[in-house]
Amino acid sequence: MASHFADRLCQAVKSKKTALTVGLDPVYNHLPAAIRQKKSMDDEKDAAAAVDAIFEFCTKVLRIVAPLVPAVKLNIAFFERYLWEGVECYYSLVSEANELGLEIIGDVKRGDIGHTAESYAKAHLQNPELAGFEDILCPDAITINGFAGSEGIVPFAEIADKQGKGVFVWVRASNPSSAIIQDFADSNGTKMYEKLAEVVAEIANQKQRIGKCGYSNIGMVVGGTSGQQTTVLRKKYDKIIFLVPGFGSQGATAADCLRFCKPDGTGALINASRSIIYAYENEKYSQQFPDNWEKCIEQAVTDAKIELAKAAQ
Amino acid sequence: MASHFADRLCQAVKSKKTALTVGLDPVYNHLPAAIRQKKSMDDEKDAAAAVDAIFEFCTKVLRIVAPLVPAVKLNIAFFERYLWEGVECYYSLVSEANELGLEIIGDVKRGDIGHTAESYAKAHLQNPELAGFEDILCPDAITINGFAGSEGIVPFAEIADKQGKGVFVWVRASNPSSAIIQDFADSNGTKMYEKLAEVVAEIANQKQRIGKCGYSNIGMVVGGTSGQQTTVLRKKYDKIIFLVPGFGSQGATAADCLRFCKPDGTGALINASRSIIYAYENEKYSQQFPDNWEKCIEQAVTDAKIELAKAAQ
Repeated sequence: MASHFADRLCQAVKSKKTALTVGLDPVYNHLPAAIRQKKSMDDEKDAAAAVDAIFEFCTKVLRIVAPLVPAVKLNIAFFERYLWEGVECYYSLVSEANELGLEIIGDVKRGDIGHTAESYAKAHLQNPELAGFEDILCPDAITINGFAGSEGIVPFAEIADKQGKGVFVWVRASNPSSAIIQDFADSNGTKMYEKLAEVVAEIANQKQRIGKCGYSNIGMVVGGTSGQQTTVLRKKYDKIIFLVPGFGSQGATAADCLRFCKPDGTGALINASRSIIYAYENEKYSQQFPDNWEKCIEQAVTDAKIELAKAAQ
Repeated sequence: MASHFADRLCQAVKSKKTALTVGLDPVYNHLPAAIRQKKSMDDEKDAAAAVDAIFEFCTKVLRIVAPLVPAVKLNIAFFERYLWEGVECYYSLVSEANELGLEIIGDVKRGDIGHTAESYAKAHLQNPELAGFEDILCPDAITINGFAGSEGIVPFAEIADKQGKGVFVWVRASNPSSAIIQDFADSNGTKMYEKLAEVVAEIANQKQRIGKCGYSNIGMVVGGTSGQQTTVLRKKYDKIIFLVPGFGSQGATAADCLRFCKPDGTGALINASRSIIYAYENEKYSQQFPDNWEKCIEQAVTDAKIELAKAAQ
């Protein structure tokens, strides 16, 4: 773990030959019937059984995708839904993914200042040195919210540095209503998200944060469906790795997402969640592989990789 | 819980005759020696013992402050620090505080969109109807981050409505570096936080959200030390309850905070955290009540209430 996060990530992107990452947003009612039925219940009212099912499902998904993609993104909201039982499951999956050689991004969007930010950073980035948690790992990187400026980012960056880990600051979302806040423009036409990107870049571009690969361990989250104008960020900040959500179910095309990659294919992670992990709900796959949800997911990953590779040509 | 959050809160403010709330940001190394020593360890390396000590401390603090203040604010970051063990402790304290008749604000600053926001809202506002969590309660209100605009706020507001609960959207922070983002101004001089306040107010001012007391269940977080200009928010949005952190240790004076109260003393909650819960580290109190940390805290609450009452005259 003493290695640099960006170096590990670039290496993984090159060896898997794709910038595709798979997002785990597990919802009990969407799990394959085979896993739900085994727990013999027809809804999500039994928390422990639901968490068991989610853990089984996610573990299997991790094994399917591990040979195919460089990284996975675990969305903690879908685990917090099951309170501390869900949180324990989240950390267990981080360890599972780590054993499989995946880079792990915890999509936690934490954001606060001072001691509070430091506590969040310890919770989510610092492998615990606490009795009772000896074998527990935190993700290789997390997403955070930079609304409070540099004092809300630096506490995370400093712990990430020490741990050989990374941070992706949420700079521009993909949902329509985010524009009213994030595209809020000053008299020069500079938008709020561009200002936020400047703040992030100042922290990210510090020499000690740049790996041998040329990228910083501090990156940015920019939605694939955000306006074409956001492509400027790629040109302006050459040391930044962009985490680009929204490929697939959220409507971003391969081209929407690839604009954040450099010509060599590095510089961005392109995340697809529901279109992959629920591929068995898509007729395209369920007809091809009836009653084999694992094959559906595997094929969906392969197809998404091909789609990205073709669009990149 | 079917009652309206703002009505319960106004009632509590009137009956306790203060807008003061106490924030629990527990850090093991600051706990009273009597509680740390009992667990016979000299640092925070044993997670289970640290969580036990924090739970004991917080439970005692809740009992001290319950007769004196309308509400407490639990900062979840200091619990997440101990992973799922800490999260379980957090929810246990919500139940403890509820039994003591306190209104409880979960300072969780969650922020995301769509299904993710809904999952966070279920985790933090919706009393679980899950087997295994029957007796567990969520806070009466939580803080959230409105960076993604209305689509990041409405999912929380809708679950809060159904549960008779509330949401405080973080509109203006108190730390210096937040200004570069939050005071970012358009060509008319309107600042980003003012735009965000508009977005929040549009959601908050919907008729069905206004309680008998005249306030909405959707409020705003505005730092006590934020510039005098933020006082405009009080004048502009008469149905909003402001949660004002920073009284005491963070340097906001009584006057800085009281500007968000209406003349009748309602309309704001003024939060003090470290200056109260660590009062025994302050010579002013430790000399008066040597070896009695509970008395120190009780006196600090009383003094803070008097300070606010005097400044309001």
